[in-house]
Amino acid sequence: MSEGHNAVVADPAWAAAAEAIVRAGRRMDQRGWVPATAGNISVRLADGRIALTRSGGHKGFLNADDVIEVDLQGRPQREGDRPSAETLLHCQIYGNFPAAGAVLHGHSVAATVLSMATKASALYLADYEVQKVFEGQTTHAARVTVPVFDNDQDIAHLSRSVALYLDDMKAGYIIRGHGVYVWGPTMDVALARLEGLEFLLACELERVKLGVPTRIAEERL
Amino acid sequence: MSEGHNAVVADPAWAAAAEAIVRAGRRMDQRGWVPATAGNISVRLADGRIALTRSGGHKGFLNADDVIEVDLQGRPQREGDRPSAETLLHCQIYGNFPAAGAVLHGHSVAATVLSMATKASALYLADYEVQKVFEGQTTHAARVTVPVFDNDQDIAHLSRSVALYLDDMKAGYIIRGHGVYVWGPTMDVALARLEGLEFLLACELERVKLGVPTRIAEERL
Amino acid sequence: MSEGHNAVVADPAWAAAAEAIVRAGRRMDQRGWVPATAGNISVRLADGRIALTRSGGHKGFLNADDVIEVDLQGRPQREGDRPSAETLLHCQIYGNFPAAGAVLHGHSVAATVLSMATKASALYLADYEVQKVFEGQTTHAARVTVPVFDNDQDIAHLSRSVALYLDDMKAGYIIRGHGVYVWGPTMDVALARLEGLEFLLACELERVKLGVPTRIAEERL
Amino acid sequence: MSEGHNAVVADPAWAAAAEAIVRAGRRMDQRGWVPATAGNISVRLADGRIALTRSGGHKGFLNADDVIEVDLQGRPQREGDRPSAETLLHCQIYGNFPAAGAVLHGHSVAATVLSMATKASALYLADYEVQKVFEGQTTHAARVTVPVFDNDQDIAHLSRSVALYLDDMKAGYIIRGHGVYVWGPTMDVALARLEGLEFLLACELERVKLGVPTRIAEERL
Repeated sequence: MSEGHNAVVADPAWAAAAEAIVRAGRRMDQRGWVPATAGNISVRLADGRIALTRSGGHKGFLNADDVIEVDLQGRPQREGDRPSAETLLHCQIYGNFPAAGAVLHGHSVAATVLSMATKASALYLADYEVQKVFEGQTTHAARVTVPVFDNDQDIAHLSRSVALYLDDMKAGYIIRGHGVYVWGPTMDVALARLEGLEFLLACELERVKLGVPTRIAEERL
Repeated sequence: MSEGHNAVVADPAWAAAAEAIVRAGRRMDQRGWVPATAGNISVRLADGRIALTRSGGHKGFLNADDVIEVDLQGRPQREGDRPSAETLLHCQIYGNFPAAGAVLHGHSVAATVLSMATKASALYLADYEVQKVFEGQTTHAARVTVPVFDNDQDIAHLSRSVALYLDDMKAGYIIRGHGVYVWGPTMDVALARLEGLEFLLACELERVKLGVPTRIAEERL
Repeated sequence: MSEGHNAVVADPAWAAAAEAIVRAGRRMDQRGWVPATAGNISVRLADGRIALTRSGGHKGFLNADDVIEVDLQGRPQREGDRPSAETLLHCQIYGNFPAAGAVLHGHSVAATVLSMATKASALYLADYEVQKVFEGQTTHAARVTVPVFDNDQDIAHLSRSVALYLDDMKAGYIIRGHGVYVWGPTMDVALARLEGLEFLLACELERVKLGVPTRIAEERL
Repeated sequence: MSEGHNAVVADPAWAAAAEAIVRAGRRMDQRGWVPATAGNISVRLADGRIALTRSGGHKGFLNADDVIEVDLQGRPQREGDRPSAETLLHCQIYGNFPAAGAVLHGHSVAATVLSMATKASALYLADYEVQKVFEGQTTHAARVTVPVFDNDQDIAHLSRSVALYLDDMKAGYIIRGHGVYVWGPTMDVALARLEGLEFLLACELERVKLGVPTRIAEERL
């Protein structure tokens, strides 16, 4: 069993991961994306360990002690540690994408409201320059589909729905009335994609208020 | 008569309560929830003393001197201290809930506008993940009723209206055109619930702008 | 001729006034009320001197050198100093209200948009708890009229229009497509009233978006 | 070949330019105008060198190393440096306006959404006091045309469209679904004009939501 987060001095890689998580939480809080105790944040270290926020607590005021270690099955590596209920969704991303190094989950007003404005299983983004921040995108003249899954307190069940579409998500996914999941090879890239997605959802919400219909994709893929 | 706030060095519990209030005020100000001299904040200490913001003054720029002691009837414990006009609403919560350790009252645009958009005596929240931050809530698939009381400059009269419904408030209550009251066992929990409620009211306000009708509960309970 | 702002060490009253102006500018900038080089800020000292922001420059990044002295007619007291074009509106308030100690002029999205949404010569505020921050107000159950004047690059002409209504302004006034003027006995009170007015204009703007008609007063008084 | 940014101690003019860019990025980020890796920022030094943000990276967290030197044709002056894809648009402004000392490009929700709300080739601003921040404007009683160009990943092609109208832009220009370009003789003036333009676009967006039609100019000039 790892002693990771108890040995910061002796474990600079863990300390760096914890620090990246603390800073990401502060940033997400400044943007209003982690209200109350919402959201969770993780990093995968080069050696495969996963550093993840503990269950509960405000993500804008984290310190290194609020970051715990889990394995790829989401099991805490130290007795008594309680990971977030949504740990499985983080681990699913790491399991599916060998290059994923950081996962962010936040709750914004725009993501919440837009996903509740339709029963559709996907939204799409198009014609925005900022789309280029997403995986493999080189032009605004494209359509990026963002799957929307119904919220479910049974995370194992939710993760099975997500699994079917995971390979084709350029910009992450949305859980209806709940929030977004975004990832990247590094925390900086994951944060840039989160900001890009939230910016575009904020634009879409304004456009719906101007009378433009919600842009619904026929299918998730 | 207590000397509480005059003897910070000798009274670490009081100093901690005052510090929690100062920090909560700063946070509420950053979110725009204590405009002008609006809002008030209190903490109940383990020994039963109640620390509360003085009448007037900006809640975003408090210092320990702005926090005074009142008893459970709202009487200031030092001559010359003038507690907020709404002290009684704080004391009512402490009197009713032995576990309540902190009470927050803020004024947001969303709470103000939504409560004025209807004459109904309650709103409800449903289908939001963030509902789980409220007392006893474990799923988004539930309905949380938030009572709305007409504003009244006679606080004793207002408190009698509140009294009738106090036992069934999961998420606090709203005074129409005025603001919200939220509480919790600790300041951290109270702040998390305040952020949760304000986030959800902000979502509801956006949804009303998208054409979703204000979600009115038939009755307060 | 005064040496006021050149002799800060020897003139603590001037230094305090300049510092109050610098801090007010920073606060207004945080709220987004002094975009570009908009807005201006003044303080009247106990000895009658008026400290006012220099013409141009960003009000969120002031330092003591950006504050100059003018007399009650708006004349700069040091050769070469160029006061704001709207100095006359500040001086008019000081001339009319012996108790006025600070004047704030800001430009917000809400004040700009609401005042352009009607040709009326006044808006009114009613049913809001926050109204109690204004001069002489003790209840939400009242109507506070806020005069709206057409913008005019001829400030002397504009000030003559304002003069006719100055005695009955509880909450300051609005210049259409331009911004608000608010004052108080001290900078703290002036800032509280500015925050109160801007909060209520933000509420009104949201209400208009919900379909509530702009609340227009039949007359300015 | 210049060693500019490698020799900060020996090159105070370069250090000052880099610092101005770093601070402008931080400011734009606080306002939400450089989401993800969006936006770019440049300064022309007195000796004609152009300091510009490197491609990629978040503009809210720049340091001096993120600023590189390009010539008036946009060619990096140090091997291996990769300037932003939109370097040509910066250089075009410097080439066309001998007095231009700073160029800012940001992405805001308002600029993005308003420019996508119409197919028109220009918007106009009128009746706003804040218009006076733009080149040569002395009154609100005027009409300032803001050209809108269709987005194009071929920047050379886009720059040729811009070239035709560059001499008549008082307030910069907008690329549809993308963002704004604004400039000025100094960074302070460029930032003030950016804030002015973004404030007015935010006002226009609110007005469209209130039912005022988007204010479309018949022609770009």
